[in-house]
Amino acid sequence: MFIEEIVNSYISNTVETYPKMHTSEELYKIYQDTFSTDHFNFEPKGLYEPVKHIMSIPGKRIRPMLCLMSCEMFGGNIKDALYASFAMEVFHNFTLVHDDIMDKADIRRGHPTVHKVFGTNAGILAGDAMLSYAYKYLCMTPASTLSDVLDVFNKTSIEIYEGQQLDVDFETRLDVSEEEYIKMIEYKTSVLLACSLKVGAIIGGASKEDQERIYNFGLYLGLSFQIKDDLLDTFGEQAKVGKRIGGDILNNKKTFLLINALKKSSTEDKEHLLHLMDEKNEDKKIAEVKEIFNLYHIESYTQERIEKYYQDSIKYLDAISADETSKSVVRQLAEKIHGRDY
Amino acid sequence: MFIEEIVNSYISNTVETYPKMHTSEELYKIYQDTFSTDHFNFEPKGLYEPVKHIMSIPGKRIRPMLCLMSCEMFGGNIKDALYASFAMEVFHNFTLVHDDIMDKADIRRGHPTVHKVFGTNAGILAGDAMLSYAYKYLCMTPASTLSDVLDVFNKTSIEIYEGQQLDVDFETRLDVSEEEYIKMIEYKTSVLLACSLKVGAIIGGASKEDQERIYNFGLYLGLSFQIKDDLLDTFGEQAKVGKRIGGDILNNKKTFLLINALKKSSTEDKEHLLHLMDEKNEDKKIAEVKEIFNLYHIESYTQERIEKYYQDSIKYLDAISADETSKSVVRQLAEKIHGRDY
Repeated sequence: MFIEEIVNSYISNTVETYPKMHTSEELYKIYQDTFSTDHFNFEPKGLYEPVKHIMSIPGKRIRPMLCLMSCEMFGGNIKDALYASFAMEVFHNFTLVHDDIMDKADIRRGHPTVHKVFGTNAGILAGDAMLSYAYKYLCMTPASTLSDVLDVFNKTSIEIYEGQQLDVDFETRLDVSEEEYIKMIEYKTSVLLACSLKVGAIIGGASKEDQERIYNFGLYLGLSFQIKDDLLDTFGEQAKVGKRIGGDILNNKKTFLLINALKKSSTEDKEHLLHLMDEKNEDKKIAEVKEIFNLYHIESYTQERIEKYYQDSIKYLDAISADETSKSVVRQLAEKIHGRDY
Repeated sequence: MFIEEIVNSYISNTVETYPKMHTSEELYKIYQDTFSTDHFNFEPKGLYEPVKHIMSIPGKRIRPMLCLMSCEMFGGNIKDALYASFAMEVFHNFTLVHDDIMDKADIRRGHPTVHKVFGTNAGILAGDAMLSYAYKYLCMTPASTLSDVLDVFNKTSIEIYEGQQLDVDFETRLDVSEEEYIKMIEYKTSVLLACSLKVGAIIGGASKEDQERIYNFGLYLGLSFQIKDDLLDTFGEQAKVGKRIGGDILNNKKTFLLINALKKSSTEDKEHLLHLMDEKNEDKKIAEVKEIFNLYHIESYTQERIEKYYQDSIKYLDAISADETSKSVVRQLAEKIHGRDY
C-alpha cells in the first residue's frame, strides 16, 4: 500500500537520524512530509477524491502534533506514534465532513465543503471510509500498546457523537445550563485533544497516572480553548480573528456567552434577548445583544472561566512526572493557544 | 455499562453449561438472548433511539451466526466470539442505515428506515456511532487474537465502501463487465460474510491456512447467494420470494442478468433493452425484458454461475482440516442458503 511505503521509507531515512526531542516546527515538518503527499490516491476515485479534498486543506494539524509531542515528552520515539497521529487527523476530518453535511455548511476553512463539491452521498460514504481508515492507521500502533490506544479511541469517538447530539438538542432549548454546555463542548471538542495526547503518552511509555494527567491537561485546555472561541467571536478584533465579529450572535448560537446571559439577565432583558433572535437588522442585533452581555459582565465572567480551565490544565501538566525540558514543547503550545487573540 | 453486564451474566450463567457444539437454532437463541434486550439504551436519546430502531428489526442474524459457527468448528468457545459476532451485526446495520439514506429508501425489511423516522442527520450520526460501537465490541475479543481480528475487519470495512462506490458508479454505465460486477458484489456483500467466518475462526484457534479457507468459503458462498438474489428477483415465484417479481427490471438495476443480456444480445436487441428502460407500462416492461433474457438463455447461464460459485465455496469447506462433525453446522447452513427459492 502506497502510504505505508511512504511512511516506512520516511521512518527509516529520516526520523531515525533526528535527535530525540523535536520542536513543534520540526514535528509539523515531519508530519507534513510523511502524510501530505498524495495520500488516499486509491480507487475507486468516486470514494477517495472527496477524502483527498478534505485532507488536503491546509491546517495546523493540532491533534497529530499533540500526539507526537506527548509521545516525545515521555521519552518515546515518534516513529511509533506517526500512524496514530495520522489516525487522529483522519478521524477529525471525518467528523468535519459529516458535520458539514448535517449543518448544510458550504465553506470549511475557506474551501468548499466535501458535500458541496461531490454531493451528500459521496460525503457520507467518504466520511465512513475515513473513520475506518482512522482505525486502520491506529491499528499500526506497536502491538504492546494497541489495546490501550484502542480503548481510549473507542471511548472518545463515541463521546464525540454524543457531544454532537447534545449540540443538536441544545438548538431547540433556551434553558441550557453552563454545566450542560461544558459537557457538550467537552465531548464535542476537548476529548479528541485529550485522546490525541493520551495516545501519544501510551505509545511513549507513560505510566497510567501520567496518561490520566496528560489526558486531563488536554481536556481542560480544550475547554478553555473552546470558550475562548466563543469569546473571540463576539468580543475579538475583526482584523485579528479574520472573520466578521458577531457571527454567533447572528446565528443565534447557544454559546457560553448567550447561555450565561440568558441565565443571569432580568425577566425584561431575557425577553429582549429572545426578541433579538428574530431581529433582521444585523448591526442592530449584534449591538443590542452585546449591550445586554455588557450589562451582565458576560465578557469578564467568560474570561475568568477561560483562565480557570487553563490553570486547571496547567496543574495537570505540572503534576506529570517528566522533567521540565521534556514538558517544554507541550507547555509552549499550551501557552500559545491560551495567549491567542485570533 | 449495561450491555457488558448482560453479556457477562449470560456468559457465566448459560454458555459455560452448554455442550461444545451447538445447532444453528441454539446459536441463534444464545445470540438473541444475549443481545436482543434493550441494548443501546443510552443517553442522549436523540443519538441512540435511531440505533435501537434498526437493531430491533427482526432478522436472521446471518453474520453473527457465521462468526459463532466458525468459532465452534475450530474448537473455540463461543463466549470468546460473542462480542465479535455482535460487532458484525452492528457494523452490518450501520451500512444499512447509511445505504438507506443514500438510496432514499423508505422501507427496510418491512419497517420504516431510520432516516424516515428520525431524519437524515440523525441517521448519519447514528450510523457513525454504530461503526464506532462495532469497533468497541470487536475490541472485546481476547487480546491474543485481537490484532488479527482487527486486520481482517479493517480491510473488510474499507472494501465494503469501495463496493458501494462501484455500485454507484455502475448506475450510469451500460458496459459493466461480469468481472466488474462480481468484484462489486464481492466487496459490497461477500466480504462481510467471509470476514464474519474468519473472525470466528481466528478466535476459535484455526490455523492461518484454515482461516483463509473459511474466508474463501464465505466469499464464494456470498457470490452465489447474491447472484441467486438477482435470479429470484426476475425468475422466482412471487408467493415464495414474498415480493413482486421484476422489481429489479422496473428499477433498471444493473443485475447479473441485465449486464449479461447487454453483453450477449444483438445490436437490435440491445437497443430494445435500452429502450425498455424508459417503458412506463410495468407489465409490458417486465415481460419484454424477460423475453430478451430468455432469448439469450440468461436464466440458465445465471444458474450455472450460481452453481459454480457454490461448488467453489464447498471445495474450500472440504479442504478445511476439521472433522466432518465439526463442519456439519456450517455445511448445513450453506446447503440451506444454496437450496432456497425465496
